[in-house]
Amino acid sequence: MTNFGRLIGASLGPGDPDLMSLAAHKALSSDAYWAYPIRRKGASSYALEIALRAGFTLPEANMPLIFPMTHDPEKLATYWDRAATSVIDILKKGKDVVFLVEGDASTYSTFCHLKRTVLAKQAEIKTHTIAGVSSFNAAAASAGESLVEVDETMAVVPAGYGVEWIEKLMTDFDTLVLLKVKPLLDEIIALAEKYQMVDGCRFIEKAGTPEEKIINDICTLKGQTVNYLSLIIIHNPHRQQMQIMRGCRKKKQEKL
Amino acid sequence: MTNFGRLIGASLGPGDPDLMSLAAHKALSSDAYWAYPIRRKGASSYALEIALRAGFTLPEANMPLIFPMTHDPEKLATYWDRAATSVIDILKKGKDVVFLVEGDASTYSTFCHLKRTVLAKQAEIKTHTIAGVSSFNAAAASAGESLVEVDETMAVVPAGYGVEWIEKLMTDFDTLVLLKVKPLLDEIIALAEKYQMVDGCRFIEKAGTPEEKIINDICTLKGQTVNYLSLIIIHNPHRQQMQIMRGCRKKKQEKL
Repeated sequence: MTNFGRLIGASLGPGDPDLMSLAAHKALSSDAYWAYPIRRKGASSYALEIALRAGFTLPEANMPLIFPMTHDPEKLATYWDRAATSVIDILKKGKDVVFLVEGDASTYSTFCHLKRTVLAKQAEIKTHTIAGVSSFNAAAASAGESLVEVDETMAVVPAGYGVEWIEKLMTDFDTLVLLKVKPLLDEIIALAEKYQMVDGCRFIEKAGTPEEKIINDICTLKGQTVNYLSLIIIHNPHRQQMQIMRGCRKKKQEKL
Repeated sequence: MTNFGRLIGASLGPGDPDLMSLAAHKALSSDAYWAYPIRRKGASSYALEIALRAGFTLPEANMPLIFPMTHDPEKLATYWDRAATSVIDILKKGKDVVFLVEGDASTYSTFCHLKRTVLAKQAEIKTHTIAGVSSFNAAAASAGESLVEVDETMAVVPAGYGVEWIEKLMTDFDTLVLLKVKPLLDEIIALAEKYQMVDGCRFIEKAGTPEEKIINDICTLKGQTVNYLSLIIIHNPHRQQMQIMRGCRKKKQEKL
């Protein structure tokens, strides 16, 4: 029986190497094989750059995995299959593979899909996910704003689903985190103005990275072209708080 | 002019000390005064326990801040005011205060409110928030599940808002994170059965702590009493994906 190594997803946080967890740091410091995602052969890897900025040197035991920028399912399947095979080849030798993840491994990351593909080929492989700081957690911290407090509610959605849905979510939730706002920026600003929520908006470009940019007055962005990695956190000060049932309510009711 | 120290919110993650960031570790290792929340005089502090489990010893320069378990706004205001005054007294001496935060400082944490109260009294104080791993990020990692992938959408809400809203969110979003599910557990299980989403549910108690418990088949929890710190992650495999506008779409349309 093969004694497989473990596949570890190490969340490195959004870019500031200091936001990586002690657990991720330990995983990188171990003798595990490093795997990291790239867009095409020879391209740089954002996840790898975080590790290098943390002071690590790329170990000899490393392998870039190509995940191309395409929505063609057949092409993608080929690349995923190839990546999973490369990973399994290392795991087969009994060596752990640590996959470097930008942000948090459970939040818009490729790790879960890589893991599924690996497990589909070799079900007995053990995996481990190290949670990390997501870009919107870092964005809120940098902007000095809370995402949610006490009994508040939050929705996290890519802006691309359109203005109509954004409008609904802005009014239904205490906090709306809109990702990849670039193509709809002007429309979002118009909505914030319509609902008098401009004061509750924070625009954050490249959250948690050395190039991070925070804009407190989103109206100044009208007509501007922003980076693709931009998000807006919208707090709704006007939401009618529904009544909430607190933790012990049920018990109390039963006692009556 | 007083040269105030900085007020630092250090997110320590949900409980596993290894999930704290390097930045939080550095803040705890500095000579900053430690402040940490407790429910009543002499009570233990969960945030402090994380720091102690990480191998730190409580420095002499430490102060527990009392935030009582009450919804009485007057009582709360008195305690908040007292906490802010204690913090400012230290900052006035030019010493930094690091406030120990369980989970992430922007996600259901007391730090943002403490910060606001401090700034309302002394606007020139500089603050800094160190982002961290939230309980639901850790829960997803422990359960080995993704929260969101590619263009997916997520809502995070306390379950106490009731079954009707939960039902709506379960079907509107790809992922629904339900917090504090204890009082509504049976109703949530019934909804998951109704919509054939049981396979997409993971129940996690005390995520990221040494007492963490993961239940993959939530139906086994019917009629059970669970811990107050329990959450359910619900993936909706049936959601009709709306069409998404991708990052470069707008540009292309303009060019036509």
